[in-house]
Amino acid sequence: MSTPSRFKKDKEIIAEYESQVKEIRAQLVEQQKCLEQQTEMRVQLLQDLQDFFRKKAEIETEYSRNLEKLAERFMAKTRSTKDHQQYKKDQNLLSPVNCWYLLLNQVRRESKDHATLSDIYLNNVIMRFMQISEDSTRMFKKSKEIAFQLHEDLMKVLNELYTVMKTYHMYHAESISAESKLKEAEKQEEKQIGRSGDPVFHIRLEERHQRRSSVKKIEKMKEKRQAKYSENKLKSIKARNEYLLTLEATNASVFKYYIHDLSDLIDCCDLGYHASLNRALRTYLSAEYNLETSRHEGLDIIENAVDNLEPRSDKQRFMEMYPAAFCPPMKFEFQSHMGDEVCQVSAQQPVQAELMLRYQQLQSRLATLKIENEEVKKTTEATLQTIQDMVTIEDYDVSECFQHSRSTESVKSTVSETYLSKPSIAKRRANQQETEQFYFMKLREYLEGSNLITKLQAKHDLLQRTLGEGHRAEYMTTRPPNVPPKPQKHRKSRPRSQYNAKLFNGDLETFVKDSGQVIPLIVESCIRFINLYGLQHQGIFRVSGSQVEVNDIKNSFERGENPLADDQSNHDINSVAGVLKLYFRGLENPLFPKERFNDLISCIIFHSTAMRT
Amino acid sequence: MSTPSRFKKDKEIIAEYESQVKEIRAQLVEQQKCLEQQTEMRVQLLQDLQDFFRKKAEIETEYSRNLEKLAERFMAKTRSTKDHQQYKKDQNLLSPVNCWYLLLNQVRRESKDHATLSDIYLNNVIMRFMQISEDSTRMFKKSKEIAFQLHEDLMKVLNELYTVMKTYHMYHAESISAESKLKEAEKQEEKQIGRSGDPVFHIRLEERHQRRSSVKKIEKMKEKRQAKYSENKLKSIKARNEYLLTLEATNASVFKYYIHDLSDLIDCCDLGYHASLNRALRTYLSAEYNLETSRHEGLDIIENAVDNLEPRSDKQRFMEMYPAAFCPPMKFEFQSHMGDEVCQVSAQQPVQAELMLRYQQLQSRLATLKIENEEVKKTTEATLQTIQDMVTIEDYDVSECFQHSRSTESVKSTVSETYLSKPSIAKRRANQQETEQFYFMKLREYLEGSNLITKLQAKHDLLQRTLGEGHRAEYMTTRPPNVPPKPQKHRKSRPRSQYNAKLFNGDLETFVKDSGQVIPLIVESCIRFINLYGLQHQGIFRVSGSQVEVNDIKNSFERGENPLADDQSNHDINSVAGVLKLYFRGLENPLFPKERFNDLISCIIFHSTAMRT
Repeated sequence: MSTPSRFKKDKEIIAEYESQVKEIRAQLVEQQKCLEQQTEMRVQLLQDLQDFFRKKAEIETEYSRNLEKLAERFMAKTRSTKDHQQYKKDQNLLSPVNCWYLLLNQVRRESKDHATLSDIYLNNVIMRFMQISEDSTRMFKKSKEIAFQLHEDLMKVLNELYTVMKTYHMYHAESISAESKLKEAEKQEEKQIGRSGDPVFHIRLEERHQRRSSVKKIEKMKEKRQAKYSENKLKSIKARNEYLLTLEATNASVFKYYIHDLSDLIDCCDLGYHASLNRALRTYLSAEYNLETSRHEGLDIIENAVDNLEPRSDKQRFMEMYPAAFCPPMKFEFQSHMGDEVCQVSAQQPVQAELMLRYQQLQSRLATLKIENEEVKKTTEATLQTIQDMVTIEDYDVSECFQHSRSTESVKSTVSETYLSKPSIAKRRANQQETEQFYFMKLREYLEGSNLITKLQAKHDLLQRTLGEGHRAEYMTTRPPNVPPKPQKHRKSRPRSQYNAKLFNGDLETFVKDSGQVIPLIVESCIRFINLYGLQHQGIFRVSGSQVEVNDIKNSFERGENPLADDQSNHDINSVAGVLKLYFRGLENPLFPKERFNDLISCIIFHSTAMRT
Repeated sequence: MSTPSRFKKDKEIIAEYESQVKEIRAQLVEQQKCLEQQTEMRVQLLQDLQDFFRKKAEIETEYSRNLEKLAERFMAKTRSTKDHQQYKKDQNLLSPVNCWYLLLNQVRRESKDHATLSDIYLNNVIMRFMQISEDSTRMFKKSKEIAFQLHEDLMKVLNELYTVMKTYHMYHAESISAESKLKEAEKQEEKQIGRSGDPVFHIRLEERHQRRSSVKKIEKMKEKRQAKYSENKLKSIKARNEYLLTLEATNASVFKYYIHDLSDLIDCCDLGYHASLNRALRTYLSAEYNLETSRHEGLDIIENAVDNLEPRSDKQRFMEMYPAAFCPPMKFEFQSHMGDEVCQVSAQQPVQAELMLRYQQLQSRLATLKIENEEVKKTTEATLQTIQDMVTIEDYDVSECFQHSRSTESVKSTVSETYLSKPSIAKRRANQQETEQFYFMKLREYLEGSNLITKLQAKHDLLQRTLGEGHRAEYMTTRPPNVPPKPQKHRKSRPRSQYNAKLFNGDLETFVKDSGQVIPLIVESCIRFINLYGLQHQGIFRVSGSQVEVNDIKNSFERGENPLADDQSNHDINSVAGVLKLYFRGLENPLFPKERFNDLISCIIFHSTAMRT
């Protein structure tokens, strides 16, 4: 009946169960260990964060102190100097001094901000981490208590399973044994009946009687065993049912623990951890972002002051600061001698002719001088522009130094290359000084000429006044009243449309090809206008016109119109000159090719030097 | 003839002239002094700027080094720990560890950036200031040369004026003397003629002859003197004319010098100064702005990591890290005993009634338990929400610490007040821990209850399966097929319009008064819906529904509609529960007044503790 190779023995089943329970138990221990380890790691991380911020606070404090010392040192120095007193009296600082003060202010601001940063680290961020650490430990303890209860519950369930399984085994074993006993009784009964089936007459009466009581006995026993079997069978069924129900409950409980409760336990450990960490780190971020904003505000103030670095207003302030030195002196008055009552140039008969002659000589001399000096002036101004371009070159962007590439050392190496290799600077500076040299030479020449002109012009004008008003108008006004009518050919020569090629900031050759204008209308028109009204105008091409008007004229030309075609045009001559300058300045390829510029300049220098010797 | 009181004497005129020239000469010297002083101040300013940036470079270098050391120290520490190895293996870091690494990265980035800043100060900004200083000195020298020439020219002009004035004086004096001599001769002649008018016969012939020759002599002298006078008169006129012309020229020259040349001289000194200073300061600004940008980028990366501080994914990673501990064990299998072939609950006649009874008992027990446990769960979740609200309070903005008021000390004082005064923190933390205490108590209660429910439910379900499929549906689905038709009274009860009073995030009392609904439609409708479909739903009020659906339902209610009126409504029960929670959470004045919350909580704690003992 028993086939031991097919059925597991009780012992095996128990061993299997026990090993399964042991495994679960080990897992439960392991889980607690993991949670504990996680908490330890958290506490360690929070300790590291505290140490980190404590140390960083120290660094920030030191940085702040150093910056403060720096600012104080220069503030004190500035306060002590005479210049400072002088400047402080004046509310309007010179623009470079203003920048300097703002620089010092910025350092003070940075100092304060880094002190604040340090303070926030120490009194806020670190405290938060400390509290999170406490909280984590407490949460772990509490969740450990809960875990302990859950484990106990689980163990209870597993024990119950063990008990009902054992009960089932026992009742089933009993049921099997009762069944086998019943079967044995049935067999005996069969044997008895079989024996009584033998011819009955051969048996003695006593024997028959004996046999009958034995059959009865067997029947009784069988009945008893039948009852016993039924009872045990029912018990076994109930035990099996109980076992199956408990098995189901156990599996559900185990499942619940592993799928839900474990997750809840971890959640308990985590309770508030991420959110509090979030807040602590956000406090740090808030401090850093605010530091940045404050720093940025300060830099913007400095940038604004740098934008206002302005030689013109500084010159004004400088001259106002020393009125005694820069105030023009009294005019020299005519000192009549010994009651001489004539105080004007007399042009009576004997001297009139001579004065006339002299006047004419002056006039022609002046005309020549002016033309010559105008040339010198143009060269001077062009050279000045070159210098201006040199000193306003935008070479101050250092953003490439702050590129963070992956490799650690790359930043350092780029920096060294950044501020233009030494030879390049030296060359640039040599070039600049050469241009300067030339500029000063030309300026001197120009000033000499203009001084002479001033003198002669004064005499010329006085003579003119003396001799009559005849020839004056041509030289004093920019708009002679008797301008000849200009040809109207350019007017509305093109419809209101844009050119295909770019006019401003474009390429001249492309434009000429595209528009079919051999000389661009803008050049022709501006030069005609300046030729008509501007040649005697003081400061033409030097004084800048109205930006608004310049833009108007420019836009008009870009639409293909000719805004200067009007005869009685009311454009400011300086604006027209400005448009022409703007046009040439903007050309993609300058009229004098860049690669030839230095050659041309050195050519002039050579030529001028040769002329001098 | 001479009225010395009316006319200035020659000496006076010369003295006046000389004092005027002396004054001009003094002014010229003073002007040079001013320009020299200005240049000296510039050189001094540039020297200060160099010193300033050299010192600041030192500070930045030190700061950079300290930051680097700080980062290295913690990096090294982190690298050495076991945890690190563990985490590094895993590409997916736990989110707090990720934040920590990014913090260290940020410090390294700052370290590098400040080193770069220092480098730019030393190799670029300072060099520029040095060059500007050189340039300023050179420009001053050159403009001094020009000034020297201009002054010489001016002196020449003034000397010329002196000369022509003297000439005029001389010729005028000569002219006066010639005139007076002429007048004397005329007087003599008159006398002679007067004498010859005397009776001529009284005079002797010799005498007459003598007299005639004397008249001739006088006449001749008069003629001579007349010629002399005319000559001197003309000379005097010419000299005066020359004086007047030279005077005009001198005044024009002086005017030109003071008004134009002086300005040009100052411009020469200034040449390139402002522009170069501008570039140097812009280099500084560019470096600072770039530092700021880099810093900001780093902070943004950290902020992003802080946003991603996420307990859920961390839990996932944590459990994946220890699969042996967290992997659910094998199911316990039914171990049949000694070849028992039945492996299901048997519900044959003898035990069927008993099982049926047991099933019914389980069913009613479960119903009670579930209702009780649901209550516990609600409390638990409400408490958890309170804790969540406590730990996610947005108390991390520290911007007010960075307000720069005028007074120097104000910053420090605000900082100390910033991070919440100690008593307030202590109170908040005590409050939080009390809530925690209550939460864990309730959680434990809930877990106990749910564990029991799980066990009983498993048995119940198994019995149900065994006994037939009859009663199941009601307990397993959230949408019973045989829902009684609901009253349609709410449907389209209001037109598509908004309420006057705010529904969500409003005040309940105001809304009730305004809308005339004794119970807001939203509350009634949601509760009816949940009552119908949700009471047996696993995770109702815990699991969050679809945000989209929640918003849809919410908006519908806000329009005055009743989106839950539909009989066969296809809304997710969790979303409906979400809407109800959202509504209550948003109320301006919570259902349980804030000021009573702690009392209510402590009331429950007291009550629960009392129950336990």
